[in-house]
Amino acid sequence: MAKLQVAIDLLTTKDALALVAKIAPYIDIIELGTPLIKQEGLAVVTAMKQAHPDKLVFADMKTMDAGELEADIAFKAGADLVTVLGAAGDATIIGAIKAAKAHGKGIVVDTIGVADRVKRAQEVTKLGAEFVELHAGLDEQWTAGYSIQVLIDEAASAGVPVSIAGGVNINNVAAVIKAGAIVAVAGAAIYGAEDPAAAAKALREAIDAV
Amino acid sequence: MAKLQVAIDLLTTKDALALVAKIAPYIDIIELGTPLIKQEGLAVVTAMKQAHPDKLVFADMKTMDAGELEADIAFKAGADLVTVLGAAGDATIIGAIKAAKAHGKGIVVDTIGVADRVKRAQEVTKLGAEFVELHAGLDEQWTAGYSIQVLIDEAASAGVPVSIAGGVNINNVAAVIKAGAIVAVAGAAIYGAEDPAAAAKALREAIDAV
Repeated sequence: MAKLQVAIDLLTTKDALALVAKIAPYIDIIELGTPLIKQEGLAVVTAMKQAHPDKLVFADMKTMDAGELEADIAFKAGADLVTVLGAAGDATIIGAIKAAKAHGKGIVVDTIGVADRVKRAQEVTKLGAEFVELHAGLDEQWTAGYSIQVLIDEAASAGVPVSIAGGVNINNVAAVIKAGAIVAVAGAAIYGAEDPAAAAKALREAIDAV
Repeated sequence: MAKLQVAIDLLTTKDALALVAKIAPYIDIIELGTPLIKQEGLAVVTAMKQAHPDKLVFADMKTMDAGELEADIAFKAGADLVTVLGAAGDATIIGAIKAAKAHGKGIVVDTIGVADRVKRAQEVTKLGAEFVELHAGLDEQWTAGYSIQVLIDEAASAGVPVSIAGGVNINNVAAVIKAGAIVAVAGAAIYGAEDPAAAAKALREAIDAV
C-alpha cells in the first residue's frame, strides 16, 4: 500500500504540530522540512515524534557533508527516516547509511539538483538507501515550464523504490502511484490548503483507489 | 588583509560560545557549522551575534532549495554571511542573493560536491555572491589521497574572491593566503586543538606575516 507523506515547510514547531493534529488520520509519514529544522533545531523532530509515536517522522536534513554525524543526531532526536542529498559524495551517503543501520532506521536520498536522477537512484539504492526521493525543489517548481510529469516518467523507469515530491496534488497523485512510487509527498497541497484535513483526506482516498 | 574564519563543528550553543570566548581576539569570522545549526536551530546564530557583535557571523546553512526563504531566516537571526550550495540550481542561488541584498548582507557559495569548482565560482560571482568557498567537506577530507593543494591551486587560478576550507592548518595557511584566498577557514585546527587560543593566535600570525 502506497504511503502519503506530508512535507511541512512551515517555520515553527507550534504551527507544524497544529497542522499535523488536523491531518494525522490521513497520513503515514510526517516530513519536517529543511527550513523548519534549521529554524527550530532538531527539537522539532523530538516534539513531533512524541506527539505522533505511531507515525513515521521524516527529518529532511538534506545532508551534504558529515553524513554519519548529521544522520546520527537526527535519529537520536527521534527521526525514523532522514535525508541525505544525492548530490553529496558517496562517502557522505555511506556514512549516513551507517548511522541508520546503527539506529535500525532508514536513509532516504533526495535527488534535488542531480542531473541524472534515475542513474543516481540506482547507485544509492545499491549503497543501502531505504528509498529515493525523485524531487524537484521549490525553486525548480517555480521555474517556467516545470512539470511533475518528468518525475512520474522517471518513477516508472527507475526500477528501485522511489517517492515523488515536487507539486504532488489531487490532480496528479493517482498518476504518481500508478507510476510505481511507494510514497507520494504532498506539501503545499496540504499545508497551503484552506482545509488541510479535507485536502489530506482526498489525497489519501485517491491513493487508496489506485 | 586576509581574514581568519573559524568553522565550529561542535553541537551545542554552549560549547560554541565557550570556544569563541577563548579565540575571539584572533579571528574575524565566526562560522556556525551546518550540524550545529540543525541541532540547535538559528537561535545559535542569534546568541553568537549578541555575544560578538563586532565579528562577522557566518551561518553555514548549505542551502539546496528555497534559497530566498532559508537565507532570509538566517539573516533575520543575525547572520552577516550565509552559505548556499554551488550544487544548487541558479534559481536557488539568485533567491539567496536577493535576500542578502534586502538585508544588506552577503551570500557565500559553498562549492562542496561541485565537479568544476573554478567554473562554478566564476558563474556564481557573476550572480552576485560575496565570495566563493573552495571547499572539500569533512567526508572528502577523510577519503584516502585527499590533499588541500588542489584547492590552493584552484584559488590561484579562479580570478574571483574565494575562501579555502578543507584542512587549513598552521602548515598550509601561508600557502592558502599566498594563492590569493581572501579568507582562510580553519575548523578542527582550532576547535580540535588542545589550546584553541594558541592555535588561533598562531594561524592569525601566519596570515599576517604573508
